[in-house]
Amino acid sequence: MTSQNYPWPALPSGADPAWLPPAPERGSLRLKLAGVGPLIDTVRAELAELTGAGAGQLVDGTAEADVVFTTADRADELASGDLAGFDVESAEGLSQEGFAVLRQAGRVAVVGGSDRGLLYGYHHWRRQLRNGTAADGPEAEIHAPATAIRMLNHWDNMAVHPVMGQVERGYSGGSLFYADGALREDLTRVHHYARLLASTGINRVALNNVNVGPLEATLLTERLGDVVRLAEIFRAQGIAVHLSVNFSSPMLLGGLPSADPADPDVAQWWSRTADAIYAEIPDFGGFLVKADSEGQPGPYRYGRDHAEGANMLARAVAPHGGLVFWRAFVYNHQQDWRDRSTDRARAAFDHFVPLDGGFDENVILQVKYGPMDFQVREPVSPVIGAMPGTRLAAEFQVTQEYTGQQKHACYLAPLWSQVLGFDFEGEDVGGGESRRVSGLVDAVVAVSNVGADEHWCGHPFAQANLFAFGRLAWDPALAPEDILREWVQSTYDDVELRDVVVELLRDSWQTYEDYTAPLGVGWMVRPGQHYGPDVDGYEYTPWGTYHFADREGIGVDRTVATGTGFTGQYPLPWAARYEQLDSCPDELLLFFHHVPYTHRLGSGETVIQHIYDTHFAGVERVEEMVAAWETVRHRAPAPVAQRVSERFAEQLRSAVEWRDQLTTYFSRKSGVADEHGRHIHP
Amino acid sequence: MTSQNYPWPALPSGADPAWLPPAPERGSLRLKLAGVGPLIDTVRAELAELTGAGAGQLVDGTAEADVVFTTADRADELASGDLAGFDVESAEGLSQEGFAVLRQAGRVAVVGGSDRGLLYGYHHWRRQLRNGTAADGPEAEIHAPATAIRMLNHWDNMAVHPVMGQVERGYSGGSLFYADGALREDLTRVHHYARLLASTGINRVALNNVNVGPLEATLLTERLGDVVRLAEIFRAQGIAVHLSVNFSSPMLLGGLPSADPADPDVAQWWSRTADAIYAEIPDFGGFLVKADSEGQPGPYRYGRDHAEGANMLARAVAPHGGLVFWRAFVYNHQQDWRDRSTDRARAAFDHFVPLDGGFDENVILQVKYGPMDFQVREPVSPVIGAMPGTRLAAEFQVTQEYTGQQKHACYLAPLWSQVLGFDFEGEDVGGGESRRVSGLVDAVVAVSNVGADEHWCGHPFAQANLFAFGRLAWDPALAPEDILREWVQSTYDDVELRDVVVELLRDSWQTYEDYTAPLGVGWMVRPGQHYGPDVDGYEYTPWGTYHFADREGIGVDRTVATGTGFTGQYPLPWAARYEQLDSCPDELLLFFHHVPYTHRLGSGETVIQHIYDTHFAGVERVEEMVAAWETVRHRAPAPVAQRVSERFAEQLRSAVEWRDQLTTYFSRKSGVADEHGRHIHP
Repeated sequence: MTSQNYPWPALPSGADPAWLPPAPERGSLRLKLAGVGPLIDTVRAELAELTGAGAGQLVDGTAEADVVFTTADRADELASGDLAGFDVESAEGLSQEGFAVLRQAGRVAVVGGSDRGLLYGYHHWRRQLRNGTAADGPEAEIHAPATAIRMLNHWDNMAVHPVMGQVERGYSGGSLFYADGALREDLTRVHHYARLLASTGINRVALNNVNVGPLEATLLTERLGDVVRLAEIFRAQGIAVHLSVNFSSPMLLGGLPSADPADPDVAQWWSRTADAIYAEIPDFGGFLVKADSEGQPGPYRYGRDHAEGANMLARAVAPHGGLVFWRAFVYNHQQDWRDRSTDRARAAFDHFVPLDGGFDENVILQVKYGPMDFQVREPVSPVIGAMPGTRLAAEFQVTQEYTGQQKHACYLAPLWSQVLGFDFEGEDVGGGESRRVSGLVDAVVAVSNVGADEHWCGHPFAQANLFAFGRLAWDPALAPEDILREWVQSTYDDVELRDVVVELLRDSWQTYEDYTAPLGVGWMVRPGQHYGPDVDGYEYTPWGTYHFADREGIGVDRTVATGTGFTGQYPLPWAARYEQLDSCPDELLLFFHHVPYTHRLGSGETVIQHIYDTHFAGVERVEEMVAAWETVRHRAPAPVAQRVSERFAEQLRSAVEWRDQLTTYFSRKSGVADEHGRHIHP
Repeated sequence: MTSQNYPWPALPSGADPAWLPPAPERGSLRLKLAGVGPLIDTVRAELAELTGAGAGQLVDGTAEADVVFTTADRADELASGDLAGFDVESAEGLSQEGFAVLRQAGRVAVVGGSDRGLLYGYHHWRRQLRNGTAADGPEAEIHAPATAIRMLNHWDNMAVHPVMGQVERGYSGGSLFYADGALREDLTRVHHYARLLASTGINRVALNNVNVGPLEATLLTERLGDVVRLAEIFRAQGIAVHLSVNFSSPMLLGGLPSADPADPDVAQWWSRTADAIYAEIPDFGGFLVKADSEGQPGPYRYGRDHAEGANMLARAVAPHGGLVFWRAFVYNHQQDWRDRSTDRARAAFDHFVPLDGGFDENVILQVKYGPMDFQVREPVSPVIGAMPGTRLAAEFQVTQEYTGQQKHACYLAPLWSQVLGFDFEGEDVGGGESRRVSGLVDAVVAVSNVGADEHWCGHPFAQANLFAFGRLAWDPALAPEDILREWVQSTYDDVELRDVVVELLRDSWQTYEDYTAPLGVGWMVRPGQHYGPDVDGYEYTPWGTYHFADREGIGVDRTVATGTGFTGQYPLPWAARYEQLDSCPDELLLFFHHVPYTHRLGSGETVIQHIYDTHFAGVERVEEMVAAWETVRHRAPAPVAQRVSERFAEQLRSAVEWRDQLTTYFSRKSGVADEHGRHIHP
């Protein structure tokens, strides 16, 4: 656990620094750092960069400072010195990851609950410095993460997969970590990436795709050296690394005849393998497992259940403090479209809820936020409200698999915020924080959207999603628009540009929903690719993803009364709200009900008119976005300006395609004309 | 031009010999061979194999023979000896490729118009020997090919293409010729393949995919040695080899800055390259070119037309007697589904008919049989009837890209026979042979269906298509059922098996059409893959392949009166017949007209009821096929039995899927119930 990496290698000149641009406001700040711990060096390097770029100077000893950075364990000691006059008592009882920002007569003290808390405090202060709000503000701000585990999953393959590419659902070029089947030689960008993550509070990453190929499987054993190198870089930013593992590893790598979790040889193989990892990486996070899912091996192969599978792995890492993230994304992907009784939405609940209480303490069941698969709109997964005896993670997608693939500007924080704030006892009744998703989970996890792309995420504005995910994982109560504003202030210098970008992105999730699949029904994308419209693309496939549109109506009847019974997986009041047509929220209507096109929504519109209206409006909104962007694009750095303009051109083309296909499809099928007489292609 | 390959290497024991099984009827025939020419050695090797397998013995000198094989130029000389008593005069005036089978008092003489004609005569006689009809029959049978050029195109890549695999649209494993980016070391199977082709009369093959990648492009130059080796093998069976070439080869291979056909450097590069090829392969057939089509480069890039492009290449090979096959498959593959005025069906005519008369004598314009792309049912391409000043080839697909991909038994000779027999002046009026497709073309070409698969074609019954293509190319007047019977007699020993296989396959094209896309509208397959149903799969794509189904009706209006005007590309009477709803043939109705589901066909059924009826009937027919096969499968060689049973299981599954998707799709859309009350999934 060295800090040999510091100061970190600088990004090549001209590279996109995302929300950590090197040049802060110029100033004459006197900055002082005190404290001990491995991450103090990291804060020191941050301060050195800041002062090197013109923010002021580092001071030490008894010199007076404008800003003091220290840890809570030294606060008493400093109270008579550097911290004299500050409200030091407020910083008592800080959690390890927490921090306080204290202010007194124009001076600032950033106190971390530990060196880790100080790192987070530093970045908080730096954002305020950039906003011009560092020196004034409350006498004491106290911050601590709402969720202990804030993690990104990388779906990176070491080599280019013939179908899925190098980064599965990546949309941002190759992998930051790997090239040509091996770890990259030059990991400069990984250093910077780790800084970006730490600045938002991310504290764990999984380094490889959950679909673990034979090459990637060897990261566990013969390629462990690669993991060691990455772990060093992430460690310096307080981030623990995980590996996605193939459940059949004892066979693939260990030459055993089976991977049966009940086989002592198998358990022993995992145990020995974990020991070997921890010998090299004492702070290794643990494993991430996609088992019995979409063709991946798992315990079902041996007649064991998922608790048996997960616990066996958990016991291998438990002695070292490791965790096992076990994905609940298990369903029948060989479904028959003719069979209306099988419902993929039910699958995770049916598979896992009966196992509640059976998972070891260091197993975290990782549950996608919705019952399907990262659609633009889904109800919250009922699994999250139904497993009080199990540690849970909510899984999101920062990568825009179904939301425009970083070709479309689509700011996702409003979606995540809504999910994290979902109260299983209903907004009106109110279960309080403990019945909200954010209160029910121990971890918030998302699939990363970064790659070797020069703008990190394909679309420069997709950086906002990466930033916002970390911030929301830290504090789910943050308003998405406030996070957006933080991001844009951190990222761009020009004030007018910032305002327009906020304006563009704020409602872009809603806009994306408007011109794509309506009213929660989902899918309607090109199979495999998941980009661009194809209304019937998934309609007759084995994936369990149907809309059942006929000439009379559309939607999936998931009611208990007449449908698949999925609504019954929710507690009251949601079970009843979703079950009844008149109380089901408009935006989820077609997820839960099959209704005639002429059914009137709560909004007063018919379903068919809603489809027409939202699709025309969505495109108009994109046209406005493009026009607004044109007014400020000259204020952005030239490479950003060019990339964003290219992306907007594609977004507009694609939105028009969505509008035209959807309106034509439903006009052909329903025979209903648009009330406003707009042109719909025949 | 040696015959160093003879006798050819034997197929490994147990390998599928297709329709040239080594064991003929046992007998005591005395066989005598006389004649000169490079292919005489080939006939000698055939006779040696026959006698070696127990058919009798080879005799020479003045020994009496039961069967004499000779060439016409020696007939006079032999008339007083081996041919004494035969009707030798009948064999006068034989074409080079023609042959006569003469009979006299139980003795047979096979007389070739040349050594090549004798090879074809030998195979004809061998089929008769196998059928037991060799010795009795007319005193003189005279045969000559109706079409001079009978060619197979191989869409083989040297290496595995990431999307298209090794053999594009192959369905029969890897390439017979190439493996791992290079020519195979062991070409044993190519020897046998060449024999199979020669036995059906094929006289040209193109050795690589018309989509020519950078690796395959080098067959023209640095890998010419590979072509030399293949040419030797095919030469021994009277087959000339061709290369598919990339129009940009002067740039790719020659380092020139352009491939402009008007650039003298470009023409000279091609000329020098052709000279180099002919120095190694004096009987090289020439080039095959897919230009300005689906992304391939071509003369349009330089503002030149296709005649300029083709003639430039033609002049490079003309001094050596070479030909250029120039594909007419040129259309806009970036079409907009919203634009109803553009019609892909029109494209080949619009591009090429204005150029009629402008192509050099050694250019053959290769025209797909229908205006679209190898669908199960299309009208005949009007291009074939509209270019009297151009040498034409009709292009077919032996490989079953859109007809079940060798997973479905689908005997295609009835389709090809119908196309070849199509009379542009109408069946009633009758333009005679000269206005039939078979009389209008100089060449009949098809994409091969063979690969490294142990049964050559994936489906053992797909061998029938390969066989039938050669036979129909030789004589388009042959009845498809007679060819089928020839094939089954040549291939299988068991008489009952033969009868059932004929019964199974005879109408299998019709059956395939019944359960797939109805009434000529085509497509409705999974995009890219082209297997299995997806009614809307191509409906909103850029490929120009639409059905325009809405809740009222379906079909493409290609009339002059109200549609795209495609019907106007036909001469009378077809222009009028296709234009008018009441005279348009049922099976092509939706290709030419958009009609309500309730429109009554000539058959008296409504369109919607026709869709239901044919889809239910098609599946029933497949069930009957499967049942019939089960009664005889024990009579087939075990590997054939197993493979066919596997394929039938998949064909039935897939046919049910087609029926269910199609009936559900149209029931959902039309709202019309099945008159017979059969179950249609909602």
